[in-house]
Amino acid sequence: MNPHALDQAIALHATAPNRYTGRTDPAYANMVGPFGGVTAATALNAILLHPDRLGEPVALTVNFCAALADGDFEVEAQAVRTNRSTQHWAVSIEQGGETALTATALTATRRETWSKQEVRAPQVLSPAGLGKPQVVAPVEWVKRYDLRFAEGPIPRVWDGDGENSRTTVWMRDEPPRPLDFASLTALCDVFYPRVWRRRATRVPAGTVSMTVYFHAGSAELAAVGDNWLIGQAESSAFRNGYFDQRAQVWSQAGSLLATTHQVVYYKE
Amino acid sequence: MNPHALDQAIALHATAPNRYTGRTDPAYANMVGPFGGVTAATALNAILLHPDRLGEPVALTVNFCAALADGDFEVEAQAVRTNRSTQHWAVSIEQGGETALTATALTATRRETWSKQEVRAPQVLSPAGLGKPQVVAPVEWVKRYDLRFAEGPIPRVWDGDGENSRTTVWMRDEPPRPLDFASLTALCDVFYPRVWRRRATRVPAGTVSMTVYFHAGSAELAAVGDNWLIGQAESSAFRNGYFDQRAQVWSQAGSLLATTHQVVYYKE
Repeated sequence: MNPHALDQAIALHATAPNRYTGRTDPAYANMVGPFGGVTAATALNAILLHPDRLGEPVALTVNFCAALADGDFEVEAQAVRTNRSTQHWAVSIEQGGETALTATALTATRRETWSKQEVRAPQVLSPAGLGKPQVVAPVEWVKRYDLRFAEGPIPRVWDGDGENSRTTVWMRDEPPRPLDFASLTALCDVFYPRVWRRRATRVPAGTVSMTVYFHAGSAELAAVGDNWLIGQAESSAFRNGYFDQRAQVWSQAGSLLATTHQVVYYKE
Repeated sequence: MNPHALDQAIALHATAPNRYTGRTDPAYANMVGPFGGVTAATALNAILLHPDRLGEPVALTVNFCAALADGDFEVEAQAVRTNRSTQHWAVSIEQGGETALTATALTATRRETWSKQEVRAPQVLSPAGLGKPQVVAPVEWVKRYDLRFAEGPIPRVWDGDGENSRTTVWMRDEPPRPLDFASLTALCDVFYPRVWRRRATRVPAGTVSMTVYFHAGSAELAAVGDNWLIGQAESSAFRNGYFDQRAQVWSQAGSLLATTHQVVYYKE
């Protein structure tokens, strides 16, 4: 069986302690460079593959310093502090000697404790009930996902008349792929720019920083398998060239798997 | 006039290109080490003071790798990528040769664009109407803030019976101090641990990673002056040793100044 396209896209080759090489994958091409969600997943993968890793991802912040050019890149991942049950990581991606991405992450061994989920998954039509959208993917990476919008799809009419910034969407890899930390990270970035939704105006926009908090461990992600996830994304404010996006991703059974935030540049 | 306690606490002394020394301040002491909000503000201050800085803070992520010990520390702040209107930073704080904090930040020159605020400030009693709480500050740093809880104060009775995790609170420095990026950063961390609110049970808890998105520029912050801010904080989920906190901070006039997120360790 061939590996899934996502596994090919985030593949890294270890070259020295803490160092890897990777290569952008046309299967996940965005308008300029690759889909940021896959680049974030690649940065996380450098930690997941690292022989010194302690525990599992709890938090990841990725800063997109520049669009990756198509081709090879180098990744450095270093455990900067290892405690008894937590470990802090610094990751960077370089191309041509220049920093294209910085990231920090926390991994930890988690123990069972008192737990409580406060935010409930939105109640919407099922993915089958919503059906596959009849739209042409505007960029290649969108074809790697099955996205079924319950609320706030990409505007069909760009009439400057959006009323809010919320999108609620069923999501999974296309073809389906068992969920893990890497694919969940990429899925946290599948929401199209909130400024397009709010304004129904297609202005240039690009994520500059993105954070993911993982509320589930690898066993819970594995139990989700290749089933649907549901995500909801919304902005708090658009101001002078930057807006924020807050989003939650739940399993179909309603378990919160990740909360994620990003700040996005927009023009005009 | 003496400098404000906050300015003393975040003061840095440049020792070499990209390098500073600082010192923890007993005025902001927490149970172990200093108040994390002030440590985050200190990390940001290394960027604010940097001669190469381009623009103003847009995003900051701080990872608390270990509690700072009382005493001196070293800060390194480096502009890892400078673009036309954006700049990416990596910051670390070390003590005794060990990394105690890592941070990344984005600064940018912002232009006036189409803008829209989606989240409104909560409508609650005024700070004067609420009055000063009659509680003894459990730790020193709490005395450096005037906090007036409209909703979700620190439980007085630890009976394990909290019903949600929300806190709404008026806040300002004590004594009042004109708002800037450093003080706003610290204010983003004044919410006490959400797990105490949700459980009305005082378990050990500590922030491990915190992100701040700045929605306002320095001129807007200066215009707020030393007036009250209102903040609201809430969790999405508590699971197996970690919970998240999302929060917003508005001016008294209702302008969203910052959105902030953190992931917090808790025991049991």
